[in-house]
Amino acid sequence: MTTTGTDTSYDLVAVGNALVDVLSNENDELLGLLDLVKGTMVMVDRDLSDSIYAALSPGVEASGGSAANTASGVASFGGRAAFVGRIGDDQFGQVFTHDLAALGIAFDGARAKSDGPTGRCLVIVTPDAERTMCTFLGVASDLSPDDVPVDLIDNAQFTYLEGYLWDQPTAKEAFRTAAARAHESGRKVALSLSDPFCVERHRVDFLDLIAGDVDVLFANEIEICSLYEVDEFDTAVQKVRNHCEIAAVTRGARGSVVVAGDDVYEVAAHPVDRVVDTTGAGDLYAAGFLYALARGYDCVTAGKLGGLAAAEVISHLGARSEVSLADLASQFLG
Amino acid sequence: MTTTGTDTSYDLVAVGNALVDVLSNENDELLGLLDLVKGTMVMVDRDLSDSIYAALSPGVEASGGSAANTASGVASFGGRAAFVGRIGDDQFGQVFTHDLAALGIAFDGARAKSDGPTGRCLVIVTPDAERTMCTFLGVASDLSPDDVPVDLIDNAQFTYLEGYLWDQPTAKEAFRTAAARAHESGRKVALSLSDPFCVERHRVDFLDLIAGDVDVLFANEIEICSLYEVDEFDTAVQKVRNHCEIAAVTRGARGSVVVAGDDVYEVAAHPVDRVVDTTGAGDLYAAGFLYALARGYDCVTAGKLGGLAAAEVISHLGARSEVSLADLASQFLG
Repeated sequence: MTTTGTDTSYDLVAVGNALVDVLSNENDELLGLLDLVKGTMVMVDRDLSDSIYAALSPGVEASGGSAANTASGVASFGGRAAFVGRIGDDQFGQVFTHDLAALGIAFDGARAKSDGPTGRCLVIVTPDAERTMCTFLGVASDLSPDDVPVDLIDNAQFTYLEGYLWDQPTAKEAFRTAAARAHESGRKVALSLSDPFCVERHRVDFLDLIAGDVDVLFANEIEICSLYEVDEFDTAVQKVRNHCEIAAVTRGARGSVVVAGDDVYEVAAHPVDRVVDTTGAGDLYAAGFLYALARGYDCVTAGKLGGLAAAEVISHLGARSEVSLADLASQFLG
Repeated sequence: MTTTGTDTSYDLVAVGNALVDVLSNENDELLGLLDLVKGTMVMVDRDLSDSIYAALSPGVEASGGSAANTASGVASFGGRAAFVGRIGDDQFGQVFTHDLAALGIAFDGARAKSDGPTGRCLVIVTPDAERTMCTFLGVASDLSPDDVPVDLIDNAQFTYLEGYLWDQPTAKEAFRTAAARAHESGRKVALSLSDPFCVERHRVDFLDLIAGDVDVLFANEIEICSLYEVDEFDTAVQKVRNHCEIAAVTRGARGSVVVAGDDVYEVAAHPVDRVVDTTGAGDLYAAGFLYALARGYDCVTAGKLGGLAAAEVISHLGARSEVSLADLASQFLG
């Protein structure tokens, strides 16, 4: 893949579900009581979201949403990012909009408003730092092809799409529209597989998409194995080769593996003193990776910047970096 | 003061402004640009709150409010607490209500609802861990004598009032009503002076209240000196003697001084590895202090439990404890 340096307006435009996270620390027993599978995301309706919320400890609210987290990471690296997604005309919508604006991310909050509540994600963090999520999409599910800003996509090196979009019919169309437009404009398309359950639900479509519409694929170890229905990680790596231009597969403490055509690079994880909450690890890895590619770095450096951003976000509660990733990167790149 | 052990339903009923905190980390320069005085709280209207918010970094939302923080601390110690204050019918109101319910704090959220927005407090945390606050009261200012739950106050050992209530005419009446009722029922009244500016605004009233209506007074060093318009801390301590039954004055890293009639106890601060955010330090000190008195401990132990709770809350972002204070206390008390 050739990248074009800084001759476009945006490094990345992210399309995804606009969500506010409600984070709380809970013991493992509660997951059992609530019938939740650790480490996964489950979609819930308003009533179920409310009844799960009622069972949780006092929480902390913070802007979230997978693709929006990635946009926030790119901005924190000093990149130019935009976000596309739908919010409600409520306080969570204001919080979501403010937090993007504070990072200089292009987001048309007024145009993005729907009648109804902003989506929320209950993020249950267990003592092992793993997160388990229950998402009530609210008006995030109103995303449709009409929301796709053609001019932004034309001017962004990467159009980044979260797999979760595939769960809603009009959002799926928005996804297809955005990907097609990006390629018409000679831009690149990146996809995150989002979640093992999401892969289960949409395996056939995802396999097809990756072959035809995706240039850079992000997945974790479980997701990539699920995608190809294989047990061995190495087998999955063989399968993803030549399926898309670049695949970046994260493996937690074992770092990441970057597959670029015939080349396979193993990139060690960035050291972390104490893992507090893994929420956002994949999203921030993608941020560092795509920021690096957009700025002309090679795949190995991209994997390292991805690991750097992921290490920062798992060292505290919440899915967005608490410090300037640009500062961390400048220390790292020298 | 005699305390009555566990023969009442509640250890404490707290009356105050129901607020959701919006916390962000900022540099000192921004305080200057926004014309804010570090370490203080300023009341702002909706428009000013919005324009200050627009200048802030991405935030984290968490339930706050001085008296509500104290109630949450008492509950975390294992005490029985209730809260009285007004919320809006909005997402911040839901968050506020949920977080009290999750701690088992009695709060009638349905009865407490007003038309209009829940109050919010922009909490600007600077690198020195000091917090500077801009409060938009929203419907918190609707608090009136009608909201004072006579039965709760009759059954609570302490009625705890925040000085901030004095800023609003009907809340001031609610304050007087609650204090009078507590004394009619043979209960104790505690007051927090809240803020040096608050003391400036209401010095004459506060001096009068403390003489006639307050059994336990909480203040920090600056507030107590401002109250008596003296420069020397020791002079303030002489003045507060016999002005009310007990005064607990916090001095940051120097711990606290408890004045009980002729006795003056200096209580060392509880050690803290790293001070991250002083938001809630005074509120949590009051929680530990009053919980201890309600459970029959002496003033020195009360000062120590206050220091323990304050040390926990300043070690992380946000005004409520992140761990069980009951667990910390049991290690401490043995």
